[in-house]
This record gives sequence, structure tokens and C-alpha cells, in this order.
Amino acid sequence: MIEVPPADEPFSLDELQKAARNHGLPLEALRYDVTPAGLHYLLIHYDIPATDAATWRLDIAGNVARPLSLSMDDIMGRPARTLAVTMECAGNGRVRMPNRVRSQPWIVEAVGTAEWTGTPLADVLAEAGVGADSVEIVFGGIDHGIQGEVEQDYQRSLTLDDARREEVLLVWAMNGQPLLPQHGAPLRLIVPGWYGMASVKWLNRIEAVTSPFQGYQQVTAYRIQQSEDDPGEPLTRMKVRALMTPPGIAEFPSLNRLVDAGPVTLAGRAWSGFAPITRVEVGVDGVWHEADLGAANGSFAWRPWSWTWQAEPGEHVLSCQATDAAGNRQPLAPFWNVQGMGNNYIQTVPVRVR
Amino acid sequence: MIEVPPADEPFSLDELQKAARNHGLPLEALRYDVTPAGLHYLLIHYDIPATDAATWRLDIAGNVARPLSLSMDDIMGRPARTLAVTMECAGNGRVRMPNRVRSQPWIVEAVGTAEWTGTPLADVLAEAGVGADSVEIVFGGIDHGIQGEVEQDYQRSLTLDDARREEVLLVWAMNGQPLLPQHGAPLRLIVPGWYGMASVKWLNRIEAVTSPFQGYQQVTAYRIQQSEDDPGEPLTRMKVRALMTPPGIAEFPSLNRLVDAGPVTLAGRAWSGFAPITRVEVGVDGVWHEADLGAANGSFAWRPWSWTWQAEPGEHVLSCQATDAAGNRQPLAPFWNVQGMGNNYIQTVPVRVR
Repeated sequence: MIEVPPADEPFSLDELQKAARNHGLPLEALRYDVTPAGLHYLLIHYDIPATDAATWRLDIAGNVARPLSLSMDDIMGRPARTLAVTMECAGNGRVRMPNRVRSQPWIVEAVGTAEWTGTPLADVLAEAGVGADSVEIVFGGIDHGIQGEVEQDYQRSLTLDDARREEVLLVWAMNGQPLLPQHGAPLRLIVPGWYGMASVKWLNRIEAVTSPFQGYQQVTAYRIQQSEDDPGEPLTRMKVRALMTPPGIAEFPSLNRLVDAGPVTLAGRAWSGFAPITRVEVGVDGVWHEADLGAANGSFAWRPWSWTWQAEPGEHVLSCQATDAAGNRQPLAPFWNVQGMGNNYIQTVPVRVR
Repeated sequence: MIEVPPADEPFSLDELQKAARNHGLPLEALRYDVTPAGLHYLLIHYDIPATDAATWRLDIAGNVARPLSLSMDDIMGRPARTLAVTMECAGNGRVRMPNRVRSQPWIVEAVGTAEWTGTPLADVLAEAGVGADSVEIVFGGIDHGIQGEVEQDYQRSLTLDDARREEVLLVWAMNGQPLLPQHGAPLRLIVPGWYGMASVKWLNRIEAVTSPFQGYQQVTAYRIQQSEDDPGEPLTRMKVRALMTPPGIAEFPSLNRLVDAGPVTLAGRAWSGFAPITRVEVGVDGVWHEADLGAANGSFAWRPWSWTWQAEPGEHVLSCQATDAAGNRQPLAPFWNVQGMGNNYIQTVPVRVR
């Protein structure tokens, strides 16, 4: 049997305030290859800033031969590429972590897949002439607030090798429309395969640096730490995960699920930032079955899966477990870490069959 | 002094699950006259249904002389009208109600304003020839689930007079784009001035009836009841309310607010479904000041307001209180009712000024 890990109730008003702002993907929206506007998860640390595309500038500076200052017209006039990218919050799954930190209370739904349109970062870096002794590229947004007692703009870095990967884009459109304010309008970074914290929104500056970036979001936040003093391991690429659309119908307000007996198609999506998905198993009361896998929309988007269950009356617990080509497989239970990051344990869906 | 009403902590996983799906308006988005896609509040009882505009039919039936069955092409070929409409959930404010019901845990943010494009319902009803002895028009969506132990499609009714009001629209577009799945694609009702429960999404049937509709969402849900046995009063139009964008910057994850001393523009929006907004007062530590009012975008959209505060260092509690032309004014404290509906007491925003 698979036990549903208990959520560590209760929740605080603090947590609820973040849940009311930063929403997840309603799981029935796993049906869409590309997540429609407004259903993609959002995690915004501070306020959504007011921006104006007409006056926006992206400055490329630091250890470069030719500093650049680009308008949105300059950027959108460059060669464009569109990529379908699955993005997940590094804090997804935090709620069932024992003794969780009081941050964004994600259950399992902090994910989405969008078609992002932008221009390759690598070409812009080449044009600026990044100095050979640079070690990282730092990306700065204009979203501004306080975290860990440090007043800051949101900033993250990538190593030079990671920044130069061909799939890393400077993005101005999502699903064929101009970026929405909450997704970083007018310009953001997209780092396919990585947790969302790398894809800096409201991007207005890029800096080549000759020593590793020591900003708060890089060296303090977004780490798997065993204690407050542990420097921890940085989150990078998304760990392997599968999600299922809960079958049947919902009861409101409990959101309990009721399913009719007989054949029931269980379906969902699976993804990993490390390697292609090679296997999804579907659990029914702890007995596992091989799901059929569909084709992913490119190298950076989730892969559909399905399996037909012969549902019999009674109470059941459904689950799903993904494996990737690098041999990564989802754990069966959450694990504790200070920030509640990287918890890719399996989803469990209790249902009643009538 | 205005006391911040305590939230009735703790919150349950049940409530959090709904907060992770049904998000509110991030309050800094009060800056937009028209709420961008994805920032407008959402309240969906069951699952977002999968629909296909190409095969969608709207049936107009019941006590009519000429039953109609219209395709989306038929509907979108009719005269179109676009209206800016502020819509709010009837459960907004539930969280600070003492001993609240465990339903959608709205704090204050269940609101948004969109430009809805559709065709007047009244003309469609006239074409169908609603019988003179009809008393109500019933609207049915295809969203399906269980509430109060009743399995149901979501359905609501309006009196014949209310249904025939010129501003009631059959809507296929929001902010100039096709309706998003979560907002009722391909077709929904919009009833300007009313709480959102009247604006049935995924609308596929309209029925004229000769006795009052007795469906669950009409006679059981969406009522202000003093006890479970009290039939209660139905929610109809939106009560008067003002909201403020919290000033200054946010701390993450607490979302506490820090403000610089000196002149600070406090701004927000106010609305009422009963009459135009005539007054907004801004409270600073319980002392009230008259805000300046801007122009609303038509008769059914919120009205902007602003007031400049000379902020002095220390802890302060800001609030705002709206009054409408019918003399309705927001109460200073929440009141209890079984379902936690219609709680339009004033917002309070604690801030620290440095």
C-alpha cells in the first residue's frame, strides 16, 4: 500500500496570503500540451512591477569588450526562436514535507508548460564580447523587496557554460502573445530544464563577472540545506516528476474525488530537467502498472502518459512515479530540508469509486 | 484606532487546496483599469471542463415560443457589445469572519475587472419568444460535480426582469481575446453589478420557467444564513467595497510591508453593484481622510481613488472605506453567517515606515 503522506497542518495566514497570489496549475489543465494563459503556475517573491516596453532597456555590462544597451525593438529585431518549456517551482511539494518552512505552500501543482518566444542569449553575449576570464553571468530583474533581511532586486547567475547553451533565451512572448505582467513583461530569461528560479523575470541587466556571484537568491535561497548553517547544495535542474489529473468528479468544497466503476483513463504528464522521461508507473493501492508514454513537444516539455484502470467500488489511492533516461526515479516519500526545496516524491490521489 | 480583525487561524489543507487553484488579484494589479489575463480572480467549484467551440451549442428552451439551438458562429454573428465589468466573489472576505466555514479562503482579493465582449441576452430571449407567464430564466453550465451531497451541473437563475437588462451579455471574449478555459470558454453569461456566481461559465442552455428555480446554487448556496435551517437572503449585487494597493515594498515570505517616510501615494479601486461610488475615505491609524476619486470606465467598472499620506516612521495601520450613491458604506468589522458570504468590511494594511 502507498500511504498518503500527511500534510503538516495547520497552515498559517502567512502561507495563505502567498497561496492567494501565487497560484498553481489546476491539475485538470494537465490535459493541455501548452498551458493556457493564467493557468501556468506563478511564484513572485515581491510585487509585480509596473513596466513600460517603450522605454525598457536591457544593459549588458561587466567584464565585456562592448557593453550594450538594447531597447525592446533591438531585442525583438534579433533572430527569434520558440521553445515549449516545462517549468516548475523548486519549492513544489513543500506542503507534505515534515515541519515545513512557512514559505509558499505548494502541494504538487507548481508547474506549467508554455511556448516561449525569444532570442538566444548566447548570441547577445558573443556580440558583447564576454571576457575570457569571466566565470558567471548575472541576471537582474527590477522586482524589488526584502528577503532574509537583505533588501534586493531579484538576481540570479549562471555559469558561463550554462548561460551559453543554445536553448537559453531572452523572451518577450508566451504562447504567441506579449508577456503578461506577472510573467516578466516586457522581457525575461528562460532557462529550459531548470527550476523556475533561474528564469529571471523583468530582466533589465546582464553582467559578466570574474568571481562567483554572491547574491542572496544564489548563495542563500534555493538550496537544499540540512541546517541553517549548512551552505547546502544549490537547486539547478528540475528533478524527475509525474503528475496525474485526478479522475472522476470533484465534490465542492472538499475537492474529494468520486469515480464511476469501470474503465477509467488515468492520464497526466511527466518531466525531468536531467534527461528524457523513459517510464511512468501508475500505482493503484500500491500495485504498480506501466503507463503508455506519448511524445513530448520537443526536448524541454513534459511528456504525456496514460493508463486505463478497471475501477472497482470502494476507496482507493492512486499514484504515479516517473523515471528518466539518467536513471532518476521519484522517491516515495518527502524528505526534510530547511527551505523545503526539491521534494519530488510521488503524488497520491485518494478516490472513492461508486 | 482601527484594529486589524484577527484571521481565524489555523487553515486546513482543504482550504489550501482551493487557494492553490482559485487565485485572487495580486493587489498591486489594482493599478490596471482592466485586469490583465491571469490576474483576474477565479472561483471554480468543480473541474474546468474540456470544451470545443467548433461543436458548442447554446440551447434556448423551456417556456418559449421558438426554441433555439445556436452555434458559436450564430452567436458571434449577432450584434456585439463590449463592457468593462468589475466582478467579485460573494465569498470575498471570508477569512476574517469568526468561526468561518471551510470553503474558499478569500482574504480580500477575490475581484477583477475585464472587458467582456458578447451579445445582449435580451435580444436572444426576444427571438425565442419567452412566454408571458415565465418568472425566471435558468442558465446552465457544463461544469459538473457534487455540492451539498447533490450531484449537479452548475446552474443559476435570474428573474425575467433581471435577465432582460440591457447589460446582461452572452460573452465569448475577455480583454479582446477568446475566453480562456478557466473563464468559461467558449461561452459564458456576464451579469454586470452582481457577484460572480450569477455569471454562469461554460454556458450551454437557457430555459424559461414558470415557477422559481429550485437548484442548489440558487436556493441553498450563495445565501446569507444565520443558521443551517435559516433559508436566508440570496446574494445578488456586489456590496460596496474599496481596496488599496499595499504601499512600499514586500518582505518575502512574510509579505510584510516596509514604506519609506515622506509623501506616499495610497491608491486603489472602489466599486458597488448598487450605485456609483461617491466617496472613499482613507484611514491612517483610525483617522480618516477624503480620497480623490477618478473616473470609472463606464457604469459597471471600479472607480480609482488616491490620497497622499505623509508617512512618519513607526508602525501604522492603513485602511479604506467606500460609500456609494445609495448611501451604502462599508462596515468596520466582519459579521458571521453560515456560508461566510457578503463580508465587505474594510481592508486593513499594517505597514512599517522607516
